Amino acid sequence: MAEHTVTFDTHATTVRVPTGTLLVDAARLAGIPLSQPCGGQGRCGRCAVQVTSGSVRSRSTLRLNSEDIASGYTLACQSVIEGNINVTIPPQDKIERRLTTDRTVAEVTVPPGYDPGQSQTIRRVFLSLAPPSLDDQTDDWSRLQTALRNQAGISSLQVSLRMLQQLGAVLREGEWQVTAVIDIAEAKPGQALEGRLVALTPGRHVDEPLWGAAVDIGTTTVTLWLVDLASGTVRAQASEYNQQINRGEDVVSRIIYASKNGGAAEMRSLVLGTINGLFQTACKRVKANPAEVIKATIAGNSTMTHLLLGLPAQSIRLAPFVTGVNQLPLLTAAEVGLEIHPEATVDCLPGIASYVGSDITAGVYSSGMDDAEKLTLFMDVGTNGEIVLGSHEWLISCACSAGPAFEGAGVSDGMRATSGAIEEIWIAGREAAAPYEPNFRVIGNVPPVGLCGSGLLALLAELFLTGIIDKGGNFHTSLSTPRVRQGDHGLEYVVAWAKETGHGRDIVFTRTDIDNLLRAKAAIYAGFSVLATSVGLSLDMAEQVLIGGSFGKYINVEKAVQIGLLPDMPWDRFSFLGNTSVKGAYNALLDREARKKITDIASRMTYLELSADNSFYESFMSALFLPHTDLSRFPSVALAIENER
Amino acid sequence: MAEHTVTFDTHATTVRVPTGTLLVDAARLAGIPLSQPCGGQGRCGRCAVQVTSGSVRSRSTLRLNSEDIASGYTLACQSVIEGNINVTIPPQDKIERRLTTDRTVAEVTVPPGYDPGQSQTIRRVFLSLAPPSLDDQTDDWSRLQTALRNQAGISSLQVSLRMLQQLGAVLREGEWQVTAVIDIAEAKPGQALEGRLVALTPGRHVDEPLWGAAVDIGTTTVTLWLVDLASGTVRAQASEYNQQINRGEDVVSRIIYASKNGGAAEMRSLVLGTINGLFQTACKRVKANPAEVIKATIAGNSTMTHLLLGLPAQSIRLAPFVTGVNQLPLLTAAEVGLEIHPEATVDCLPGIASYVGSDITAGVYSSGMDDAEKLTLFMDVGTNGEIVLGSHEWLISCACSAGPAFEGAGVSDGMRATSGAIEEIWIAGREAAAPYEPNFRVIGNVPPVGLCGSGLLALLAELFLTGIIDKGGNFHTSLSTPRVRQGDHGLEYVVAWAKETGHGRDIVFTRTDIDNLLRAKAAIYAGFSVLATSVGLSLDMAEQVLIGGSFGKYINVEKAVQIGLLPDMPWDRFSFLGNTSVKGAYNALLDREARKKITDIASRMTYLELSADNSFYESFMSALFLPHTDLSRFPSVALAIENER
Repeated sequence: MAEHTVTFDTHATTVRVPTGTLLVDAARLAGIPLSQPCGGQGRCGRCAVQVTSGSVRSRSTLRLNSEDIASGYTLACQSVIEGNINVTIPPQDKIERRLTTDRTVAEVTVPPGYDPGQSQTIRRVFLSLAPPSLDDQTDDWSRLQTALRNQAGISSLQVSLRMLQQLGAVLREGEWQVTAVIDIAEAKPGQALEGRLVALTPGRHVDEPLWGAAVDIGTTTVTLWLVDLASGTVRAQASEYNQQINRGEDVVSRIIYASKNGGAAEMRSLVLGTINGLFQTACKRVKANPAEVIKATIAGNSTMTHLLLGLPAQSIRLAPFVTGVNQLPLLTAAEVGLEIHPEATVDCLPGIASYVGSDITAGVYSSGMDDAEKLTLFMDVGTNGEIVLGSHEWLISCACSAGPAFEGAGVSDGMRATSGAIEEIWIAGREAAAPYEPNFRVIGNVPPVGLCGSGLLALLAELFLTGIIDKGGNFHTSLSTPRVRQGDHGLEYVVAWAKETGHGRDIVFTRTDIDNLLRAKAAIYAGFSVLATSVGLSLDMAEQVLIGGSFGKYINVEKAVQIGLLPDMPWDRFSFLGNTSVKGAYNALLDREARKKITDIASRMTYLELSADNSFYESFMSALFLPHTDLSRFPSVALAIENER
Repeated sequence: MAEHTVTFDTHATTVRVPTGTLLVDAARLAGIPLSQPCGGQGRCGRCAVQVTSGSVRSRSTLRLNSEDIASGYTLACQSVIEGNINVTIPPQDKIERRLTTDRTVAEVTVPPGYDPGQSQTIRRVFLSLAPPSLDDQTDDWSRLQTALRNQAGISSLQVSLRMLQQLGAVLREGEWQVTAVIDIAEAKPGQALEGRLVALTPGRHVDEPLWGAAVDIGTTTVTLWLVDLASGTVRAQASEYNQQINRGEDVVSRIIYASKNGGAAEMRSLVLGTINGLFQTACKRVKANPAEVIKATIAGNSTMTHLLLGLPAQSIRLAPFVTGVNQLPLLTAAEVGLEIHPEATVDCLPGIASYVGSDITAGVYSSGMDDAEKLTLFMDVGTNGEIVLGSHEWLISCACSAGPAFEGAGVSDGMRATSGAIEEIWIAGREAAAPYEPNFRVIGNVPPVGLCGSGLLALLAELFLTGIIDKGGNFHTSLSTPRVRQGDHGLEYVVAWAKETGHGRDIVFTRTDIDNLLRAKAAIYAGFSVLATSVGLSLDMAEQVLIGGSFGKYINVEKAVQIGLLPDMPWDRFSFLGNTSVKGAYNALLDREARKKITDIASRMTYLELSADNSFYESFMSALFLPHTDLSRFPSVALAIENER
């Protein structure tokens, strides 16, 4: 049998292998183990390498796009060596990044040209005041105002009683040298500046970080970015389950709880506890004190915003589904209950409807779809699924109650995407050496303790593709595998045996879990359909699909399409933007113009009330199957089923 | 002996009396007892009658002005009948009012042309909103804003979180018919109206009173006027000792107390307790609930304002004597701690210096001196004495620490001017039938329990004029009267014996009391002198003297001049204006223009710091005598002494 030379450029190693050897085996021979989380089935894309000279025969190019293929990329587990080749093995993180349709966390970069003096509403100035004397008995407050007018051009200043109460002591402690933080109101060019005094500290403090925070209050997860407003950089990120979760997993149950005696106060206190805990965590990481945070910009769905602010949320739940307030005035931390600087500006971004809140207006802004030429479909999948269709010309939105399944909640072994969570999974087919056995990737490379959203989604897709469950989500009981078994709550699939797990218990996926996920994905897909239909378009006309949400960050498009969550279209139309809500809040925190654009988005976005749309229920029922009752809508999935079975 | 006919027109009675009979005796004969509180010494003016035909020989016309005399007025106790006469006896209240230099309480009249729609910052509007539906899911807050824009022309509305929290319930309870109270900001003609939502109630409530309050916080006494802003009328008045009084009688001791640990909070709570009690009292009287009060305009000296608002007051007391804030922003009742509508606007009027507060700027406004052509001397005698000299062209002010003696505090048997207080007193001279015996008038015509400010002032003057004390305030011990005796604290004069009093204890006036009053009056007179000198004028150039303050309301000019408190000038130059501070607050509460003028007064009034003025101490020492070391400054007093002794 002919032998060929395989040179691994990156490792300066050469091996000789017989014709027909798989590239992945040649690499192993050369002492270069390639990552194969899917077990060498050519489905995860993780073993992609670049053949820089010579060529291989590829059995499958799944997960590679045409550009990749033209550059010589191939899946090592699917590549048969039939001649001499040179191979470059990209660093693993480069693969991760290249697989844009798999998972991409857009890095947080400071907006180009960020100039705190121009972009920010917040201004920090050092002031040197003339001390009072018997010849100049000007009162403290006028003295400070004069200094601000003369030294910073701020002619009109709002102030709270609380601030006035501290004024005298601060001025004297600083011996009439103080640093003031002002929140400058919108000013027309050439007009005098007006602002609100947010903070006053003795002495000169203009070279230290100036702390602000962007907060996304999700139904399930609350995320906080601690930002140095002086440089614009995100200095710490923290996120945590919303403590309200124990009082109801979705917004409706939260509203019901809040409408009971004392419930609203409890809900408010729970989410405040969560946010204040995140402030502690994030500040600790950068050795700051939460009391130094002087601005917080908050995005969240309308229910979360109402519960945070103690606004009655009952009307959100009951027809005709109206909120108390969509556009909130600027508040202070003390009013809201945030344990940061009591005078810190709290800017709650504007929402537009009961189920399209500021997380979506902020998300649309940070996704850029409001400026896009292309017809864009934007979705944010969290506990609810909100969908926006449009471009720079128009925007229409709707909301579908997806439930918290995709955030790992409401599922037997669901968990957040933290260490120990299975985030991706592949199941061997019936023809494999070990049929129906799973292979998975765990966050942090530790023994697994549960499944996060992307893991659950992958699992559902794999169970379906391998024929372990049928299109209705029912388990086939006749398969020769111990993994499908009768559990305490009906049939279930064992993802990991107790001995393999981090907590010593089996990790399972039950029929009930499947139903929860089916309902979640059906609600979202039905939303897409109804929204497109309402404007006389079909889903496949969308030129790009932008996916936000903490869940979207880790989503696997292929699998999302396979279960019928996402419409079946070329993968390169999908982009994953991570938590677009907190990003939008971050933009609004930094930039007055971004903040204005979010208001503009809120005012021009149309809201489609699905509950008032007769076609929604029908669309939902059709989407309760894997991938859909109408398989013709999912040609790539039809092909995959054929290949697999 | 010749007899004459005396006809009392008012009583249709005639008597015949011999020549030389006193008119007062003729009246008694006719069964018409005339009031003679001074015991027939011709000094109180209370027995004034009008001789309409014929004439009498008047021994004295004290307390009658030339106009009175020309109209036939005469003092019945000083009029000798020498021919037939007709006499008209004016009703007692008419006498009281005619004796303008004795006591005048200016009645509170609504400013002419008061139009709440124009003058007021507060506007109340009934709104009918379209209920939400699936076709109109506008949020509650936008719905209300739209109604206000369309139905009341108010285009921009501030709102607190507290108000937003109640919004949904109020709108639904009123079935989308609500009454809104808005505090409208300053608007230029033709510009859109902007305001702040103060109150929102279900249903239509535009014909009910719209409650506001004017408050004067005196060091000793707090006064509150409850006003129906719809009509402008004062519907209830209430006043009470400032509860802080037990923690110090003057502002300096209050500041010292407040600077101790917890002292400021206690002071704040005490004055809030006082004001909130007055709101209860006043509201009860008109069957209103304090929670319905939606605006309060507050005047007070700078220390009172600082203590009320929890502002540090220490710098007021220590050189260079500066306040924390002279011009406060608009606050809300909740911030301040007033137990009225929590969103009620609290407008603290502007002061100008540590010892010239908003009680003076408000007082100057309500006195009209800021518009006067005449050179005017304005004084407000409360616990402090503040003095303003000027006219519509210029204003200069100073403050002298008078102490609370003139408010009845800090004096053995001092009390407020309420029922049981001796408010005026006359002492018989050494030649009288009952030498050195007093005659007094008691508020409410009940047995006396103490002396109020005007009573103390009269007592001091009478003791001096009758020679019971000398010009240094020392008792003459050689007089044949049991009234001057050795008491527990040195020599004292017994004003009323235990058996005559309401509480069964002697009412006395001690040497210490005399010293307190001397210091108080000396401080004020020295203030006049230094202020006039500072602008190169002499005191007698003042064309009018306007006297405000709760004490000033009941002051007796003659006696005030006799003790050297007021400068010796023709009585018709003096006007007594009552509590000018609360009146100014009332004007500012009603009228946006009045409020602006008070700001204008504050900005154009010069403040003279007496402690930085070398001549003050000398002036003060010279004024510590009765009436003054330089008797030539008090010619009328010199004459009275001569007459009396």
